[in-house]
Amino acid sequence: VKVVLMCGGIGKRMTPLTKDKSLLQFSGKPLLLHQINCARNAGIDDFIIIANPENIDPIQTLLSSLQNVRISYAVQEKSLGMANALLSTASLIGKEPFILVSSNDLFTSMAYTQLLHEYQNNNFTSYITALRIQEYFPGGYLKVKSNAEIERIIEKPPKGEEPSDLINIVIHLHKEPEILFSYLSTTESTSDDIYEKTLDRMIEDGYKIKAVPYTEPWQAIKYPWHILDTMDYFAQFIKSDISPGARISNKAIIDGNVIIEDKVRVFEGAIIRGPSYIGRNSVIGNGALIRDSSIGNDCVVGYSTEIKHSYIGNGCWFHSNYIGDSVIEDDCSFGAGAITANFRLDETIISSRIDGDRINTGHDKLGAVIGRGCRIGINSSIMPGITIGANSFVGAHINLTHNLETGKMALSKSEYMILPNLWSISENKREDLMKKFKQ
Amino acid sequence: VKVVLMCGGIGKRMTPLTKDKSLLQFSGKPLLLHQINCARNAGIDDFIIIANPENIDPIQTLLSSLQNVRISYAVQEKSLGMANALLSTASLIGKEPFILVSSNDLFTSMAYTQLLHEYQNNNFTSYITALRIQEYFPGGYLKVKSNAEIERIIEKPPKGEEPSDLINIVIHLHKEPEILFSYLSTTESTSDDIYEKTLDRMIEDGYKIKAVPYTEPWQAIKYPWHILDTMDYFAQFIKSDISPGARISNKAIIDGNVIIEDKVRVFEGAIIRGPSYIGRNSVIGNGALIRDSSIGNDCVVGYSTEIKHSYIGNGCWFHSNYIGDSVIEDDCSFGAGAITANFRLDETIISSRIDGDRINTGHDKLGAVIGRGCRIGINSSIMPGITIGANSFVGAHINLTHNLETGKMALSKSEYMILPNLWSISENKREDLMKKFKQ
Amino acid sequence: VKVVLMCGGIGKRMTPLTKDKSLLQFSGKPLLLHQINCARNAGIDDFIIIANPENIDPIQTLLSSLQNVRISYAVQEKSLGMANALLSTASLIGKEPFILVSSNDLFTSMAYTQLLHEYQNNNFTSYITALRIQEYFPGGYLKVKSNAEIERIIEKPPKGEEPSDLINIVIHLHKEPEILFSYLSTTESTSDDIYEKTLDRMIEDGYKIKAVPYTEPWQAIKYPWHILDTMDYFAQFIKSDISPGARISNKAIIDGNVIIEDKVRVFEGAIIRGPSYIGRNSVIGNGALIRDSSIGNDCVVGYSTEIKHSYIGNGCWFHSNYIGDSVIEDDCSFGAGAITANFRLDETIISSRIDGDRINTGHDKLGAVIGRGCRIGINSSIMPGITIGANSFVGAHINLTHNLETGKMALSKSEYMILPNLWSISENKREDLMKKFKQ
Repeated sequence: VKVVLMCGGIGKRMTPLTKDKSLLQFSGKPLLLHQINCARNAGIDDFIIIANPENIDPIQTLLSSLQNVRISYAVQEKSLGMANALLSTASLIGKEPFILVSSNDLFTSMAYTQLLHEYQNNNFTSYITALRIQEYFPGGYLKVKSNAEIERIIEKPPKGEEPSDLINIVIHLHKEPEILFSYLSTTESTSDDIYEKTLDRMIEDGYKIKAVPYTEPWQAIKYPWHILDTMDYFAQFIKSDISPGARISNKAIIDGNVIIEDKVRVFEGAIIRGPSYIGRNSVIGNGALIRDSSIGNDCVVGYSTEIKHSYIGNGCWFHSNYIGDSVIEDDCSFGAGAITANFRLDETIISSRIDGDRINTGHDKLGAVIGRGCRIGINSSIMPGITIGANSFVGAHINLTHNLETGKMALSKSEYMILPNLWSISENKREDLMKKFKQ
Repeated sequence: VKVVLMCGGIGKRMTPLTKDKSLLQFSGKPLLLHQINCARNAGIDDFIIIANPENIDPIQTLLSSLQNVRISYAVQEKSLGMANALLSTASLIGKEPFILVSSNDLFTSMAYTQLLHEYQNNNFTSYITALRIQEYFPGGYLKVKSNAEIERIIEKPPKGEEPSDLINIVIHLHKEPEILFSYLSTTESTSDDIYEKTLDRMIEDGYKIKAVPYTEPWQAIKYPWHILDTMDYFAQFIKSDISPGARISNKAIIDGNVIIEDKVRVFEGAIIRGPSYIGRNSVIGNGALIRDSSIGNDCVVGYSTEIKHSYIGNGCWFHSNYIGDSVIEDDCSFGAGAITANFRLDETIISSRIDGDRINTGHDKLGAVIGRGCRIGINSSIMPGITIGANSFVGAHINLTHNLETGKMALSKSEYMILPNLWSISENKREDLMKKFKQ
Repeated sequence: VKVVLMCGGIGKRMTPLTKDKSLLQFSGKPLLLHQINCARNAGIDDFIIIANPENIDPIQTLLSSLQNVRISYAVQEKSLGMANALLSTASLIGKEPFILVSSNDLFTSMAYTQLLHEYQNNNFTSYITALRIQEYFPGGYLKVKSNAEIERIIEKPPKGEEPSDLINIVIHLHKEPEILFSYLSTTESTSDDIYEKTLDRMIEDGYKIKAVPYTEPWQAIKYPWHILDTMDYFAQFIKSDISPGARISNKAIIDGNVIIEDKVRVFEGAIIRGPSYIGRNSVIGNGALIRDSSIGNDCVVGYSTEIKHSYIGNGCWFHSNYIGDSVIEDDCSFGAGAITANFRLDETIISSRIDGDRINTGHDKLGAVIGRGCRIGINSSIMPGITIGANSFVGAHINLTHNLETGKMALSKSEYMILPNLWSISENKREDLMKKFKQ
């Protein structure tokens, strides 16, 4: 059984981030490698990767050194959805059973193990991983019979009308690809759900599809703030690992599970609380505090900076900042006193404008999302849920209240009056002040 | 001899604070308890408390568990001054000698001891505690004969025309309540001084009233900044006392006399300088600095925050703030970078607008006075002596230059220009920067 | 051989600094003393100081206690350049050989040693110290023959057309003062180069002048930012020296070569990285970070302040600031959160407007230059290369984008809206927040 991993989507919903989702690093490894390893831990070593024209090269480079694994690549020329991706890869997939996986989902290898187990002990046409949920989630619910056979897939039923507590997650084993492809090629839809409609039509026609309940950790990555959730997902598995090549002051504090890579320097008084990750070559300055965060390579987290539950790319510079619940790509730098607000004064859920739509992020703590190569001036304030496009400047002393597009420069309009000043300090005053202090 | 403690005043002058003065905690105990204890230390255990409709219930609850003490309660329906308070309590007071005390004054039990001593060894109608002062103070001065008998009470004489260095403090022993009440009920005045005029009339009619000089610490509480003075008053008596239930990092520094209550957590690098008080369940974060301050229960003083000579209520949150010489009620929180200015650039005495009047606070260091349930946005600046009413928001990045009323929201109008930005970072620049740093 | 040290220039180009350059302290000693010592280390102890009416008194006071040295003083009444300075001192200089030195230059005693050596072993009329440079510098280039005899001095040739890699530095030995004075008195020029033209005329007339190459450290002091370069120059020679009268917490960190003077206090968690200098009586607060800087006497560097590569005068106060690459004269103080930006977002070289001209500072890191007795309000931002005149106020929360003249007050115009706020905090919310934190 091979895994077909769909990495071909173009992440408009990840704006303003510029890096391909599959290549984002978590705990020091690109997401795609984590996903490949997840399958391999279940004994699978045969893969088809469906990439897009942008990410095919780096993906091939990334995976080229993997051993004892067979990987074929397909390129989906245009981002036309799952059905299109599958059909254009049909000949590569062939007639053998395969597991279709979306690279937007994170899960443990148990999902594979369960599918394989069911497939070996039953005789259904397809097996669908069904996430068992505790509270309402706007996804595709599975209506199932007592033997777990699926009767229907119901997309986003109103709250209270869910047919079960089982959500469809795209980790699907198809025993007979030819049947699937034949249905796929004859299903029509105006929206992006041809694949799901295909499964429905197969069920209607009597093919048997089984729901395989899954209860381990799961996380989707659609929007930028999901990077923080994904970071948390991988944080569960972080074990303390400090490179012998790192130079860590004995007056620094490393607390909890922290990975510190080669050539990192941690100065006196710095505090790193796990689960956290510090990439190669980065510098954590005096008294800086990092908690529940991932810091990339070549970063400088300077004096008096707190980075709290944030995902920081490579080559970023901070000093005297508070960065909370934020996602910051490579090569950004922050002037002293620049702050990301991560909590609304009214404590309500934070929304964010992505690709023209205002999206409820589901988080009451969320800072900024900043594309690569940005510069943030001193004493600037960035409001919760704001996005800043790549290669943009936020000038000094600005309160950034709206998203800033790629390649823009926001400059302060703030003015001041100039008046004469008749006051002047005397020697006495200086001595007075000093005496007061010395007391 | 019983003590009649007047707690019935409604503190307009304490705006924007919402909590009754008598219930404010100092060193972990409500002010009223301190005042009761002060009398009990002088051997008095019989009390009449004159409350108002607002504070009568919490006061009764507070005192209900006291043992070996008799307390009667009276409610002054309207805030009509001392004379009214006394007359409406006349039947409760009865005919036995009593000591009248204003809850606006703080003093040591020596004041009671002195009054009782004089009363036992002399035969005056009344005894008035007379604070001996070093420099001019705008109060009621006592003109006295050589045997300390009072000739007249002179309200606020001009500086240089004071008849003595003795100020009238309302800790008055009246041996014959009936005489006092009879005069009280026939004294008329358009202003709030019927009680003082009554004493004058008694003197004119030949009743003998003695001044009893007092030289120990004394403090009045009329305006919000007096809470800082009161905090200092009690700070003199603080002895180090760290609850065994507190968790204090051995990398934190506790210096001087500090009370730390149960379940407090103090993180690495935090510094608490005494005299200070940290209430139950509060968290002092990494590297935070607290000095000469009182922190309530359930507070979080986060990373990189300095709280200097301030009085903080319960449930307040800070991180990356400077809070100096400020009074902050319960449930307020401060965004990172929000700062209270506590010193004018021209170093002059700070004034504050209270209930419509601009009051000279007498302090050259004074920060903000903030009512309960306020939220202060990131990078906000609050000018010296400013008050903020309860349940108000100060938006991010605001320079608050005027008082903010209760239930208001101050939002930034600050604007910025958006221009194209042609700059972009190159790999080389990143390496250059890194090399510079690593040198 | 005596040294004639020209200290008579009035430093318009040092605006807004008010202190005479020669009296500025480096490593605890005035610049002039360093310069005198430099000559004495080469065995010279005969000096003529050309001062101006402003600095003659403090200079005489300063040097009065020097032993085993002969110093004569001349006053240049008006700032009319080198030729004027020399001619007005001609009688004092007399007929013996002398070395002319500008107090604007810093160099090691090797420059003197070399000149004296050449003078003893050759027979040229004058000897000119010639700085051997690595890259283009806008100065006076020396065209020399193979025997180092100077053919011509070429002022600021275009880049690529330099006649040599030798720059004229005013450390000149003149064997025959009378010849020099006679030429000086007959040279005319409309610009400030009479002295250089004089040398050219002497060469034309057949007098032989030799270039004496110098390759040791050299630094000019013309503009305020050169004070930082000068600080770096002297920093090379700093050796660790901590006064026994200093009180330094054993929880503070002193790293590298640091001079700490008498009565300095360094609190817990403070970090001082060398090369740095801390003047008498100064206080370095908890967790403050000082690196590559010079701090004067009577300063307070409070909690959470970073001072990086800056020159700070006496009696300055900081708390919760970032001060980078800045020059700050005596008696300035900074409110919490005030920050000097020291790096442009576009990373280009910083320019500064001095005495009406925009000057390229040659530095990509430069903060503010602030005259004595200034006050900077809380949360203010000061842009790179900005100068602030003496006795000026920068109000709270200002983004200072232009130079501020002497004796001015810049006040915020920032406004805000006031709206009703219907939100209020509940007990539940407080407990929720606390629970979240405690997890």
